[in-house]
Amino acid sequence: MRIAVDAMGGDYAPEVVVQGAIDASSKLDIEVLLVGDKDSVAEALDKHPSQTRVSLYHCTESIGMDESPFKSVRQKRDSSIRIAFELVQEGEADAVVSAGNSGAILAAGVLTLGRLKGVQRPAIASILHGENGEIVIIDVGANVDCRPSHLLQFGVMAHAFAVACLEIPDPNVGLLNIGAEAGKGNEQVRLAQELFRESHLNFIGNVEGGDIFGGDVDVVVCDGFVGNILLKMSEGLADMITRLVKKELIRSTPTRITGPLGKRHMSRLMKRLEYEEYGGAPLLGINGVGIVCHGASSSRAIMNAIELAWRFSANRVIQKMVSELDLYRAENDFSRLSASKNH
Amino acid sequence: MRIAVDAMGGDYAPEVVVQGAIDASSKLDIEVLLVGDKDSVAEALDKHPSQTRVSLYHCTESIGMDESPFKSVRQKRDSSIRIAFELVQEGEADAVVSAGNSGAILAAGVLTLGRLKGVQRPAIASILHGENGEIVIIDVGANVDCRPSHLLQFGVMAHAFAVACLEIPDPNVGLLNIGAEAGKGNEQVRLAQELFRESHLNFIGNVEGGDIFGGDVDVVVCDGFVGNILLKMSEGLADMITRLVKKELIRSTPTRITGPLGKRHMSRLMKRLEYEEYGGAPLLGINGVGIVCHGASSSRAIMNAIELAWRFSANRVIQKMVSELDLYRAENDFSRLSASKNH
Repeated sequence: MRIAVDAMGGDYAPEVVVQGAIDASSKLDIEVLLVGDKDSVAEALDKHPSQTRVSLYHCTESIGMDESPFKSVRQKRDSSIRIAFELVQEGEADAVVSAGNSGAILAAGVLTLGRLKGVQRPAIASILHGENGEIVIIDVGANVDCRPSHLLQFGVMAHAFAVACLEIPDPNVGLLNIGAEAGKGNEQVRLAQELFRESHLNFIGNVEGGDIFGGDVDVVVCDGFVGNILLKMSEGLADMITRLVKKELIRSTPTRITGPLGKRHMSRLMKRLEYEEYGGAPLLGINGVGIVCHGASSSRAIMNAIELAWRFSANRVIQKMVSELDLYRAENDFSRLSASKNH
Repeated sequence: MRIAVDAMGGDYAPEVVVQGAIDASSKLDIEVLLVGDKDSVAEALDKHPSQTRVSLYHCTESIGMDESPFKSVRQKRDSSIRIAFELVQEGEADAVVSAGNSGAILAAGVLTLGRLKGVQRPAIASILHGENGEIVIIDVGANVDCRPSHLLQFGVMAHAFAVACLEIPDPNVGLLNIGAEAGKGNEQVRLAQELFRESHLNFIGNVEGGDIFGGDVDVVVCDGFVGNILLKMSEGLADMITRLVKKELIRSTPTRITGPLGKRHMSRLMKRLEYEEYGGAPLLGINGVGIVCHGASSSRAIMNAIELAWRFSANRVIQKMVSELDLYRAENDFSRLSASKNH
């Protein structure tokens, strides 16, 4: 398998991206194509003369974090994000990983690979670690204003992803809301509840903010405005808490915490809290595999994102998603038929 | 000063409410009126025969957590929530504290005390502890669908509260959004930005989810849908992390953590994370002082909420809020005048 990695994306590119690619290629049975400007990437890559599985794919342009997504992807035909997806389109690579402008990654995915049949709005999912395992939140920022039917599609796609990529057998799908009762929430969510209830998904109803990390839900559906704020807030809160814990521990147990035992335990804890562990957020709804990484990604985050791209491709998640979307469309046709009978 | 406390509200009422009231009355120079059914409250109160500052105010009804707010307050004329606010209306008490149905608390506050002049939508604020001090988030659940002008009013009220009650000299007000740039966000937030920019508030622009706990913002404005999810998620995440920290610490340093030094440091940390410390959420926009507590409040949370009610009343926050709302209305009249000039 070959993964195209955007070497120009992220706050610490290209160095940490190159390092992450090298680490992933020695851990997994993959090749990596680093897409970027040869002068800046070669310098970082030359530090690893003995490796053979990471190679450079030269391009001349890159897209900045604040550039308009669709405009920049259309105009910058030789940008690293666009070229990475074109490599997938041409069969030269199996997946894309980028820590660049997330809107541009989504736009490039849609423009080059297209959407899966029946998908109105591709979305960005995020994988969080809760107390009882992995949780998928969708959408975390691609779509700020959503219709109820968009939310249902997010649920269908994330359900397929949870089954096929995370190997959760029968994921519980919940709709993020401000109360458990059916009548709660804003209009968008109240209407979406009915659609979810009629679907083939294992819908457990509304979930509240407090149920995300410690509850029974595997897939949490919300619009991209709420999801993005939530995701960033949880990262910020986890960051603050880990800093506070470290500070208090250094104060209270100066010798223990620097000892190997304390260190090992604390690092296991920190691993569960840091977003680096999650690696990246999968794009769902495009006809291919794209992983969006945090702009501030470390080499470990890049490595984990490449591993996620590998699992995403190896587990044939797209095929599973296509089947679920077929089922979803059949259901929707069926409900239209039964609705017209009542008229 | 006399605080009316709803003795029937909350998951552990009346015992923990009575205990919280007793603790607050011995800490502060206040009296507490416990509003509730005499048979159930007297039993808990009789366990403290020597105290003299907490007394019982009998009523026959209570409102359940799932009852319709306005309907239940209108119909249950002798319910503890309604009677507590009527005691304020009649001058028998200065503030209300309740861990009951938050919608009913808001409804009772509006029905008995009315709104402050110019307020379209009263809101519930919440006080969180960030890295650089206290942060006010408004609204955390009273209003699920908000117009841009509602968001501005929330900002005006919370600004006054932060100045007068939390003694933050010149609070930075931010609008919760998914990006720092002016064009970001959904329609509601894009329009609200302009209103905030024209106002007298110290508006610092958009703040993202990650800026809440570690940033420069003192007042975070959002609609009640986003705010409620955010608040509950942060409680859930903090709960999970504290459980994980405790578990890992017990594993790694079995002797130290049970020693007095470790305990003291960890308890200081936990204090910063647990919502109990914040006590309760102030209702802003009604003509009086009402504090909403978490349904699962402990006696410590009730005590802290009573202390917040005391600060709210003693610092004459309502008067400050009235002045700010006057200023806000003057600005809005002014902008209407200048708008009509352009026609």
